[in-house]
Amino acid sequence: MPTVYVTAPPDAADELAETLVDERLAACVNRFPTTSVYRWEGEVHRDEETVLLAKTTDDAYAGLVERVQELHPYDVPCIERFDESDVLESFATWRTEHVE
Amino acid sequence: MPTVYVTAPPDAADELAETLVDERLAACVNRFPTTSVYRWEGEVHRDEETVLLAKTTDDAYAGLVERVQELHPYDVPCIERFDESDVLESFATWRTEHVE
Amino acid sequence: MPTVYVTAPPDAADELAETLVDERLAACVNRFPTTSVYRWEGEVHRDEETVLLAKTTDDAYAGLVERVQELHPYDVPCIERFDESDVLESFATWRTEHVE
Repeated sequence: MPTVYVTAPPDAADELAETLVDERLAACVNRFPTTSVYRWEGEVHRDEETVLLAKTTDDAYAGLVERVQELHPYDVPCIERFDESDVLESFATWRTEHVE
Repeated sequence: MPTVYVTAPPDAADELAETLVDERLAACVNRFPTTSVYRWEGEVHRDEETVLLAKTTDDAYAGLVERVQELHPYDVPCIERFDESDVLESFATWRTEHVE
Repeated sequence: MPTVYVTAPPDAADELAETLVDERLAACVNRFPTTSVYRWEGEVHRDEETVLLAKTTDDAYAGLVERVQELHPYDVPCIERFDESDVLESFATWRTEHVE
């Protein structure tokens, strides 16, 4: 099942997390404050951001990515999918029931 | 080698982390404060939680999951396994030596 | 594409993150404060650390690991590679362009 890793400015991240759960694209989203160091147009930048880990299903994954791209303030957002190799069965069931 | 992702209320998470290392079910556990947004019984909820990343071995994995389920206050805890595709050999050796 | 998970003391982690981006070994690095519980020489220890998630490429991965080992204050640092199963194409392209 996909865990989707998204980096966003803190305010946008809060709104993204709420929207993904509200629209049943994710069963839950964990938000983590982060400091990012990155290169943009030749310069090294540092920014306070938020990392979202959105727990979703195979079926909902494409719709979630599309929605994040619509709402995200960056032209090139970090959106990556990681799949677990095992998951507690009751949690997997709960996740499937809370996503459409 | 498994990294086990567990979400728990902060107090329970601290105790879980200590127990897993104390009982040699994990060589180390990293704890991260998180804000979770999730759907439960039809409503969207928000909670301060802690995410644990427990570093363990193939052999100890089943015992770790069993112990987390025993100690965890939730009926349906998030317990997921992620496997790395590469690991520094000395770290893998250390991990194996500190887990039973 | 590799995401490299590194744990380090906070000061060393800040310097590592800057160096990896500055030397074009990673396109971006996310830093997260963490509390670690681990076993070392028979005793259970607790430390404030920082987790780095360095976003790099297949080609730059070996060089990044070598550089982290050179700069890291621990004899046995946690350096693990996780590969995503999907990534937004524009983000993958950006990443490739900012790593050498």
